[in-house]
Amino acid sequence: MSAKFASNQAGDRIRVLMKGYHIAVVGATGAVGVELLRVFERRSFPVASLRAIGSARSTGRSVRFHDDSILVEELTDRSFDNEINSEDVRGHRGLIANPNCTTAIALMAIYPLHRVFGIRRVFAASYQAVSGSGARAINELRQQVEDTSQNREMRSQIYPHPIAFNVLPHVDSFLESGYTKEEMKFQNEGRKIMHLPEFRASVTCVRVPVYRAHSVAISAEFEQPVSVERAREVLAKAPGLELVDEPQRNRYPMPLGVAEKDNCQVGRVRVDCAFENGLSFWVSGDQLLKGAALNAVQIAELL
Amino acid sequence: MSAKFASNQAGDRIRVLMKGYHIAVVGATGAVGVELLRVFERRSFPVASLRAIGSARSTGRSVRFHDDSILVEELTDRSFDNEINSEDVRGHRGLIANPNCTTAIALMAIYPLHRVFGIRRVFAASYQAVSGSGARAINELRQQVEDTSQNREMRSQIYPHPIAFNVLPHVDSFLESGYTKEEMKFQNEGRKIMHLPEFRASVTCVRVPVYRAHSVAISAEFEQPVSVERAREVLAKAPGLELVDEPQRNRYPMPLGVAEKDNCQVGRVRVDCAFENGLSFWVSGDQLLKGAALNAVQIAELL
Repeated sequence: MSAKFASNQAGDRIRVLMKGYHIAVVGATGAVGVELLRVFERRSFPVASLRAIGSARSTGRSVRFHDDSILVEELTDRSFDNEINSEDVRGHRGLIANPNCTTAIALMAIYPLHRVFGIRRVFAASYQAVSGSGARAINELRQQVEDTSQNREMRSQIYPHPIAFNVLPHVDSFLESGYTKEEMKFQNEGRKIMHLPEFRASVTCVRVPVYRAHSVAISAEFEQPVSVERAREVLAKAPGLELVDEPQRNRYPMPLGVAEKDNCQVGRVRVDCAFENGLSFWVSGDQLLKGAALNAVQIAELL
Repeated sequence: MSAKFASNQAGDRIRVLMKGYHIAVVGATGAVGVELLRVFERRSFPVASLRAIGSARSTGRSVRFHDDSILVEELTDRSFDNEINSEDVRGHRGLIANPNCTTAIALMAIYPLHRVFGIRRVFAASYQAVSGSGARAINELRQQVEDTSQNREMRSQIYPHPIAFNVLPHVDSFLESGYTKEEMKFQNEGRKIMHLPEFRASVTCVRVPVYRAHSVAISAEFEQPVSVERAREVLAKAPGLELVDEPQRNRYPMPLGVAEKDNCQVGRVRVDCAFENGLSFWVSGDQLLKGAALNAVQIAELL
């Protein structure tokens, strides 16, 4: 495969190579991201365009792909909004690194369980950090915390209400149905990524006063009978995922435990009280690195 | 009804009057609590024992019941642990003011919907404030926030991990099943309060860095077909509850919006994506006042 990129007029970093897949590698400078690029090269994977996405730390660095050097751009919640909704991307399957925070982190645990038990539907509630809204949101939380300690009134610009010492059931914009776009991505992107057009997801996305790393409480119904023991075995072996599940020793995933870690963590695994073949569990992941983790699953699929 | 109280040996404030109901009035000095006591008097309700529970503000004050004066004790998450688990209380029905934070706040919305549509099961995830763990937990959060701003390491005493800028999927102690006691109270107490032995609740209880007021994300399945319009009508008329549901105008319940308010708030009402006859919604309530709100439902039932 020859490397012949051309910048497009919009000035973004999508480079057209040949008819093929539009690829975005999230966590492109990380161990998994680099590995994924090598896999594409080795297998001469048909790449039509390639975006390299990374955390603020990696922005400005570049990654090598064939003979070319790709500038790394910063990941935010908005990085893929246009593309996810465009028909151009919708036609492609399977290898788009899906950047939706809640979906990606939740699928790190749901997908390996699905391969064993067959997922039918999930209920999920998220606990999303402000870093998903970018650096200005981080500053807004920090400023509001300081305002509170100085007995000053909190001012809000990024979010419609103060986020410090508060939680907002509002991530992304509201649709006519009463759901947010973010909430519907879980079902829509979950269907695409798992190739399950019947998959149903009832989701509430909530912003919490956490600087970095998202968490998701999940109840999942499966086709097959489940057991906690077998589920823990499956999750412990899943790529990009770490099982942290010793509640009696106060060990479970939490934002401060996964921040700046490549792997997502899953814990609180238990038999669901309200589903027949159901499991409840809790996943935390650094949403700036979640793409890398999701890529790990996709590498596993690819190989 | 004559008032003849005797302190019990354990030194707690349960006073034995006669064979009848064991009553705990949460928010006893508040408008609703006082009203409830008057209702009991007027109707000569058979009260075997009476506890008056209030916020830290009310502790040490007393309330009048018939000819007696009852000292107000402070409400914490632990106020009822022993009793809830004792056979003594388990035998009584319907008029125990239920102090479990998550359950009480969620039932403010679930119960009126149940009366119209017939509840079958719910999925719930909570966002619980530190005030539920008492004044020392409030100080712990405040201290950790200050430590962070001074670049000092955070110290934890009340919770096993820092709560500032973090979330903990851990409220109350863990059972063998992997659930916490707090999580199981939702199903157990929900069954008792609604007289529904088949009611199922799959719950994840999570502590968040909020000083005051809990929130709960709920998906509920009903016997009857539901509509958002009818649900909003029912919720708007429910006692102790305020409908705050204009997402396009950024109006929805949140902790800072309900702190120190008697009423709980419900919003984000929408058709559930994963249940046939399902609704999703979001409830916030000041857990120090939730008892008062729950009492309002119970007054409505009583009258």
